Amino acid sequence: MADRSEKALVVLSGGQDSSTCLYWAMDRFGWQNVETITFDYGQRHRIELECAEKVAAHAGVSNVCLPIDTFAALGGDALTDAAIAVNSGPGDSAALPNTFVPGRNIIFLTFAAAYAYHREIRHIVTGVAQTDYSGYPDCREATIRAVQATLRLGMENDVEIHAPLMHLSKQETVELARDLGGLEAMALTHTCYNGTRPPCGKCAACELRAKGFAEAGIRDPLLAAS
Amino acid sequence: MADRSEKALVVLSGGQDSSTCLYWAMDRFGWQNVETITFDYGQRHRIELECAEKVAAHAGVSNVCLPIDTFAALGGDALTDAAIAVNSGPGDSAALPNTFVPGRNIIFLTFAAAYAYHREIRHIVTGVAQTDYSGYPDCREATIRAVQATLRLGMENDVEIHAPLMHLSKQETVELARDLGGLEAMALTHTCYNGTRPPCGKCAACELRAKGFAEAGIRDPLLAAS
Repeated sequence: MADRSEKALVVLSGGQDSSTCLYWAMDRFGWQNVETITFDYGQRHRIELECAEKVAAHAGVSNVCLPIDTFAALGGDALTDAAIAVNSGPGDSAALPNTFVPGRNIIFLTFAAAYAYHREIRHIVTGVAQTDYSGYPDCREATIRAVQATLRLGMENDVEIHAPLMHLSKQETVELARDLGGLEAMALTHTCYNGTRPPCGKCAACELRAKGFAEAGIRDPLLAAS
Repeated sequence: MADRSEKALVVLSGGQDSSTCLYWAMDRFGWQNVETITFDYGQRHRIELECAEKVAAHAGVSNVCLPIDTFAALGGDALTDAAIAVNSGPGDSAALPNTFVPGRNIIFLTFAAAYAYHREIRHIVTGVAQTDYSGYPDCREATIRAVQATLRLGMENDVEIHAPLMHLSKQETVELARDLGGLEAMALTHTCYNGTRPPCGKCAACELRAKGFAEAGIRDPLLAAS
């Protein structure tokens, strides 16, 4: 199970899911083999960048932040354009929520793999999940598998993408963080779509997070800290 | 053959191959349905950006230039780092030339598809070629097909990637440009790895271009113009 001679790179957004993945990666690969990468793509909730740094520092692993100025230049979505209000969307594919940035996870995973390419890191870990996926098609397992196939062909290596939360409910994700000793770090994470701290508690992301902690019967350390 | 009711986006680098693809796209989709996109990713041969603009203007189609600041932040390759000398490489996969930017074409195609997503453009055209591919694995047909599969899953649409030069030799590419009325525009293109104008004539890219024109028995309009 554990590949303690190989290195892993966690795509760390500073949110609950990717932070849980960091603890998953440290458990599987050994913390000394784990690095994290964060993307500054002009997201409206820029507080995430600071959270990613804090979560990595708390865990004792490195964190590199790479800029991506392209999404903002592309325009047209609520996550990078402050002039557009966030709508949650019905969550089905016929009408994607306007927080959908086309190709975002494909871009993140490709840049992560490019970073890993020169550093002999074979494993990339992402916090995407098919359950509770909010209608994002680039979070589905089929897409992630296709990205891995593309990267292997395009970079001629055997990069492996792990999505340990893919089939977990939010409750199970909370329980996983607890089981891996990552609960304390959750106080440092950020989830709210509206980028406020303390979180707004009303957006779809806040509601989903609250539901997960409630179902796991655990008080959210972030709310306890606020 | 011709899909004259659908729109196409050509990934235009300002080089010979992508400029030839522009003429291919105008022939297939009708010039009024064709747009071009260029990426400013900090390439050392920045003269290409200007060439792309000129080629598009000459053809009478629009050209949008999107920034990508991530490759420069990643570092480590000769195309974006002026401190590293270009080596041509043996052209086999065991030792990729140091002009290899891992994942470059995957990123270009994904951002092009993201741009097309909001504009109801279904067709993306790229100038990558498997013949004479200089050892870049992300220029191969299998990679391009995998990118298309990934984009379709990740964006939930039926985007189609065309690589009309995939199996053409450089001679055939020159002949294609001639047959499509694009030869004159070749005087506006740029190929040289060293970014000089007139081209250095000595780098692998210059040599390959010269060979193509020689074998086609056509004088390179770029050299005639220099």
